[in-house]
Amino acid sequence: MLLGDILNTNAQFLSRELAKLGINVYYQTVVGDNPARLLEAYKTAFGRADVVIATGGLGPTEDDLTKETAALYFGKELALDEESWEMIAAFFRKMHANMAPTNKKQAMMPIGSSVLKNRNGTAPGCFIEEGGKMLFLLPGPPNEAQPMYLNEVAPILRPRTERMFVSKTLKICGIGESQAEEMLKDLIDAQGNPSIAPYAKTSEVWFRITASAKNEGEAAELMKPTLDEIKKRLGRNIYGEDDESLVSVTAMLLMEKGLTLSAAESCTGGELSARLVDFPGISSVFLEGAVTYSNEAKIRRLGVKAATLEKYGAVSPQTAVEMAGGIARTSGSDIGISTTGIAGPDGGTPEKPVGLVYLGLSVKGEASVKELNLAGNRAKVRTRAVVSALDMIRRALLS
Amino acid sequence: MLLGDILNTNAQFLSRELAKLGINVYYQTVVGDNPARLLEAYKTAFGRADVVIATGGLGPTEDDLTKETAALYFGKELALDEESWEMIAAFFRKMHANMAPTNKKQAMMPIGSSVLKNRNGTAPGCFIEEGGKMLFLLPGPPNEAQPMYLNEVAPILRPRTERMFVSKTLKICGIGESQAEEMLKDLIDAQGNPSIAPYAKTSEVWFRITASAKNEGEAAELMKPTLDEIKKRLGRNIYGEDDESLVSVTAMLLMEKGLTLSAAESCTGGELSARLVDFPGISSVFLEGAVTYSNEAKIRRLGVKAATLEKYGAVSPQTAVEMAGGIARTSGSDIGISTTGIAGPDGGTPEKPVGLVYLGLSVKGEASVKELNLAGNRAKVRTRAVVSALDMIRRALLS
Repeated sequence: MLLGDILNTNAQFLSRELAKLGINVYYQTVVGDNPARLLEAYKTAFGRADVVIATGGLGPTEDDLTKETAALYFGKELALDEESWEMIAAFFRKMHANMAPTNKKQAMMPIGSSVLKNRNGTAPGCFIEEGGKMLFLLPGPPNEAQPMYLNEVAPILRPRTERMFVSKTLKICGIGESQAEEMLKDLIDAQGNPSIAPYAKTSEVWFRITASAKNEGEAAELMKPTLDEIKKRLGRNIYGEDDESLVSVTAMLLMEKGLTLSAAESCTGGELSARLVDFPGISSVFLEGAVTYSNEAKIRRLGVKAATLEKYGAVSPQTAVEMAGGIARTSGSDIGISTTGIAGPDGGTPEKPVGLVYLGLSVKGEASVKELNLAGNRAKVRTRAVVSALDMIRRALLS
Repeated sequence: MLLGDILNTNAQFLSRELAKLGINVYYQTVVGDNPARLLEAYKTAFGRADVVIATGGLGPTEDDLTKETAALYFGKELALDEESWEMIAAFFRKMHANMAPTNKKQAMMPIGSSVLKNRNGTAPGCFIEEGGKMLFLLPGPPNEAQPMYLNEVAPILRPRTERMFVSKTLKICGIGESQAEEMLKDLIDAQGNPSIAPYAKTSEVWFRITASAKNEGEAAELMKPTLDEIKKRLGRNIYGEDDESLVSVTAMLLMEKGLTLSAAESCTGGELSARLVDFPGISSVFLEGAVTYSNEAKIRRLGVKAATLEKYGAVSPQTAVEMAGGIARTSGSDIGISTTGIAGPDGGTPEKPVGLVYLGLSVKGEASVKELNLAGNRAKVRTRAVVSALDMIRRALLS
């Protein structure tokens, strides 16, 4: 992990799970298999927290030191745990694999600790509690550490926490982060329980409202006034909540209204179609996508007029409108959406700089167009254009 | 990140890049936007390292404290940096967005620090060097932090390290990770300087060959025998090196041979086109993409026979071949590629399970087809199908 070969997915998993129990995670630290630095890390961690969860370093090799160093930190000896030793042996028999003598190391446990069972590998975990401090040692592989947390660690922690945290996320598109925060400034400044936390996403802003309460009902009650007020202020800029996505919300609106959609993409190159197809139920409303990157394809596939391309260029409101109308007509869809722009890194001019994108929309023959000036690299410009295109469809369906 | 909402990809990126410079990363720490804990984290970090790189907390809100706390730690005042302030204002003008008064906070810099330019967002970075300690402050979003590291931080660190690590990555597609490792087993077992590290990617395997040397020339000499031997053994399974991608390699082959390509996508839903358009130079060879998710679109757009769909189904080698031939013909391209399959989570049957995908290829009228049985969720199946489709084109162009 310190070489950058592995992403620390355990830290994310554990933090998310601990948040559900109302346990605040104050620090995540990664340290290597070095005895001095590892001991120092235990000292630092217990100097600032009551509960420490460590993952990794429970393997059979000499490099694996997490348990040995923990024993040293707490001043404990290690002794063979017969039950763990039998489980390790059984695991090897099941795998038809030969056990190395070093595997015995995995069954050595600090005296006075409790064993955390590992159903998915050979390394048992370990729980030490002393002087108001709790240390949990879990194996490194996520498919071992994560079930062990859920089955062995959470049941120990849960009865010791008094409160729970319940969150709701409101998802916003079409206004920037600072504008959204400005609109909620007094609420954010005065926040207590519930708290209001903004998250900036690519061309989206999410607000997570979190209440600390004894139970779900009390949390819902605490959150209601804040949620109602935010919804009132941001109105249609809020596209959805929690697990909803721009695509899922747009797809549901299309289905409700019995309307079909097709997409003609130039600068986004298929990303808009791909995003729509992310939603498994889309096939009943999304009829067709056309990636018309070249002028020839725009003319042949979509019926864009050569004169329009000549006079205004491929990146123009006129072309965007003809593309949207063309894909709706040739696919027999109620709605056509189009993208044409300059994603960069090359191709920009003073008049038409990189990041200039036009979105065309045709709803039952009625055309509209939107100009975007997007920041970022090629990938970012394309993704922002896709998000804005989805939002343009969504808003048209709401009005 | 402490709530488990975000994976710490910056830590991975920075660790990997620092390893290339021969700089050992001893700790990674995550700490929240809390002044006391943040200050404590700086103290702890500089108690055990000479160089500290921090990401995040450079935004305009009151929660953003990384720079302010760093100034406090080093006993420095903050002052407005006019150039940064001008860049932030220019960024907002380009976005046609209103600047909030709080954005001025982003241009406040500790006196005596150097500004690290941000070309991808509003938050400039900051570099403080004092008493043998170096602190780099980067913004949180990976698309801002990572280019800033490469463009601003690495050039400062590089001249200060004694040995350098030089790596070359060989990228493999079309054979699995264990098969590739088996073919190189004796080389991997006997590795020293250079080292050989495999990385499993989605339907790809990369081998990173790394030499530790005094300079680039010595590194190249050390690596040559290993590179030559791996290339000899893996042959055409190696599609490229370092920054080359399957798309860039395929695009270059198309250009070299003066051939044009179009794509007809069903299960991949536009992702293949989007991946092709990732490569800025693609427009001269990639004529058109069609996302024909429905049977009607396959018939109307591509001329797939209704009888074929009726008799063999949309997910069949016959349909794949007709789709590939159809898109080549209707777009006037030399090469047509098609995808049709069951990406899941629903739609699978015992005969045609989730993960079954057919790729069709038509090269100047000559058809071929490939059956894939892909593991993973909907997104994974689609991405694997896209990678295999690109590799199918690449191999056809090589033969």
